[in-house]
Amino acid sequence: MKLMSFRDRSGRAGWGAVEGGTVADLTATAPSLRAALTAGRAITVPAAAPRLDLANLTWLPPIPDPDKIICVGLNYLSHILEGGREPPKMPTIFTRWANTQVGHLQPIIRPRVSPTLDYEGELAFVVGRRCRHVTEAEAMSVVAGYACYNDGSVREWQRHSTQFTPGKNFPATGGFGPWLVTPDEAGDIARASLVTRLNGEEVQRATIDDLVFDVARLVAYCSTFTVLEPGDVVITGTTGGVGAYRKPPLWMKPGDTVEVEITGIGTLRNPIEDEA
Amino acid sequence: MKLMSFRDRSGRAGWGAVEGGTVADLTATAPSLRAALTAGRAITVPAAAPRLDLANLTWLPPIPDPDKIICVGLNYLSHILEGGREPPKMPTIFTRWANTQVGHLQPIIRPRVSPTLDYEGELAFVVGRRCRHVTEAEAMSVVAGYACYNDGSVREWQRHSTQFTPGKNFPATGGFGPWLVTPDEAGDIARASLVTRLNGEEVQRATIDDLVFDVARLVAYCSTFTVLEPGDVVITGTTGGVGAYRKPPLWMKPGDTVEVEITGIGTLRNPIEDEA
Repeated sequence: MKLMSFRDRSGRAGWGAVEGGTVADLTATAPSLRAALTAGRAITVPAAAPRLDLANLTWLPPIPDPDKIICVGLNYLSHILEGGREPPKMPTIFTRWANTQVGHLQPIIRPRVSPTLDYEGELAFVVGRRCRHVTEAEAMSVVAGYACYNDGSVREWQRHSTQFTPGKNFPATGGFGPWLVTPDEAGDIARASLVTRLNGEEVQRATIDDLVFDVARLVAYCSTFTVLEPGDVVITGTTGGVGAYRKPPLWMKPGDTVEVEITGIGTLRNPIEDEA
Repeated sequence: MKLMSFRDRSGRAGWGAVEGGTVADLTATAPSLRAALTAGRAITVPAAAPRLDLANLTWLPPIPDPDKIICVGLNYLSHILEGGREPPKMPTIFTRWANTQVGHLQPIIRPRVSPTLDYEGELAFVVGRRCRHVTEAEAMSVVAGYACYNDGSVREWQRHSTQFTPGKNFPATGGFGPWLVTPDEAGDIARASLVTRLNGEEVQRATIDDLVFDVARLVAYCSTFTVLEPGDVVITGTTGGVGAYRKPPLWMKPGDTVEVEITGIGTLRNPIEDEA
């Protein structure tokens, strides 16, 4: 299943299952996708669910209001090496807040205070149930689905100190979507490949099995230091090719379009606009 | 005013104004202190507000469910120097999640996976209204109040990578309270002094005016990279004397009691217990 969150033309927020150009509206079964995951019942599409035309909907992040967004840095060897770093022994973990997220086709915002807005194409996964101390062997059972993520980064502010937080938390810099693909439909995620394109030109390419810490290891690690909740988002890190390490640096600017495509998942596309 | 959040013996969560040994229950005016700040009206105590006996209440963090907890590292010169670091040009910002917080007198939990549980006595402030791009001159007007905070840290996990997140986010490691003191009652916070005690022995001492980045500068900096919301918590960093840099290191262990006292604010006290 492909599960999306949306706002309709009346301003109502909802969610549902994408079926080609229509969406089976599941909002009557739970007020949000996060609430549906929290309820813990299998998500099914009633035959009588209202069908909405995708063309009439605004895409929201699949989980607009996660309790936590856990970000992994430096998780592909190519990106580690371009930054002149050693391969890590433990995952590098930082965070985003929910107000940094934007849905498919919604603008990513370049802030007033810095032009150093960079892309980071990533695989995201969403946690399906509350859990702690999950072993690697059990880890895949807590994954509710996968999505594309663009961990948009304001490099100048990321480098203000040792901690990445400011550069990773400007409003509307994290593209997330277009939808959440359930594991049965995504297949073996390790075999997927990820491509980032800026204005149609490929700028990053990776295969998911190049992750230093894979999905199962990330679930095990993160569930050791925190309680994972339904709807928590984990973004698994980016690969080589970011704009910051190019000579000259390649920053995203108003009028650009950035895409993150993962095979078997879909393509997340966002235009870039300036902060008002 | 001293504003607290509580759970009563029936399990009901509420909030109110502390008046000696009783609390004027304000839950009928807004469901939570965060909701009251969001409503934006001045907080007043109706004469008819029910009075509850403090002895019958469990202390919750003053804001149990903040949208954001913004943490500042390395913000006192003495703590910077004990770590062998240079004074920073920009604030060091990391984050905690809401499930890391515990109220006054509630146990701070030492995790199974590491005995390296350390105290960090800090001044916290809470944001009173939604704001962005706040100047230093305007900054104090967005502060709703002050509290004590113990930014409990699992040092081994804080040092797994360059990013502090794991070591700062174990459940129930962040003491917050006992209450929120409004600015009119707190007076000139820069003149306050902060003391941390472990089992009654003083282990940290600072005056708030030793902060490298003071409250106004932190509001201005943080509101540049994020939208601050009512109820957001900012913890301003710790001073020298943490357990990690002692020889031998001084870790908190079950049976210990840790206190953070700030003049004009109050004393936050937490026992230490092991993870179940």
